[in-house]
Amino acid sequence: MCSIARALDVVGERWSLLIIRDALLAGVTRFGDFQHNLGIATNVLSSRLDAFVAAGIMERRRYRERPEQYEYVLTAKGRDLGPALIALTAWGDRWSSPDGPPILYHHADCGGAVAPEIVCANCGTVEIAEVAVRPGPGMPAEYLANRRPRRRAGDADVPDESK
Amino acid sequence: MCSIARALDVVGERWSLLIIRDALLAGVTRFGDFQHNLGIATNVLSSRLDAFVAAGIMERRRYRERPEQYEYVLTAKGRDLGPALIALTAWGDRWSSPDGPPILYHHADCGGAVAPEIVCANCGTVEIAEVAVRPGPGMPAEYLANRRPRRRAGDADVPDESK
Repeated sequence: MCSIARALDVVGERWSLLIIRDALLAGVTRFGDFQHNLGIATNVLSSRLDAFVAAGIMERRRYRERPEQYEYVLTAKGRDLGPALIALTAWGDRWSSPDGPPILYHHADCGGAVAPEIVCANCGTVEIAEVAVRPGPGMPAEYLANRRPRRRAGDADVPDESK
Repeated sequence: MCSIARALDVVGERWSLLIIRDALLAGVTRFGDFQHNLGIATNVLSSRLDAFVAAGIMERRRYRERPEQYEYVLTAKGRDLGPALIALTAWGDRWSSPDGPPILYHHADCGGAVAPEIVCANCGTVEIAEVAVRPGPGMPAEYLANRRPRRRAGDADVPDESK
């Protein structure tokens, strides 16, 4: 139902995004290159690539006839994972990279550092605290009816929260 | 080693980001409210919240003495997941929401739609195709030495890619 859940069904696993990053930012397409760069087990890589093809994130293309050999090329849907990938990396860099970022992202044209931002169509960059949500057309009616509203810390009205 | 892998170790699972979204954008803090809104099993929710506290993404705070009751409040590290969350949602909305987006994000101040973008410090918004990578200070030397360079489709030089 939720778009985040749908996204994580495809990429919510450490190997998945690492494979996509290698494809997106290092131009890797071949089984042996993914395997070599990532040190990933053959069966895991194989199942991830098959899943990406099934999900429409990659296309399998033959690049040699004898012997038959294939490469895995990102589709538009796969390339569109770029912003999520940059955002997750930036978070990992800020909060769990004691030695500094292992990889730096920059704008190829000018060399400037790039960063993920949330941009309002009217106002430009905004903070996450300024973002609000409302139900969209794909929200099931029964979910809305049942949803429990926001409360403030300190309210004491529900007995089932002893955890 | 990689920052993406570190990020996914914490949030790379569908329930994890749904819990964080509920906390971040709906202000949910209590066990019973997460459980009710998400329809998540008690044991799964409990283990996710414990993991968030261990990872420094949430703080467990007592809000009632008798009986003792706790709430789970995002830390700065947890709130900083906002851009990744918006980016993953936007991707799911574009590519796997046949009924339209279940949730719409907007700028609270003006009502404008918000979107994740990759912003260059010099040039403003850039496309993912314009982003390049280079090793950062946290990149282990042996990884660099072994890394296989990018090649173009059609090259035929490596025998181990029959998959």
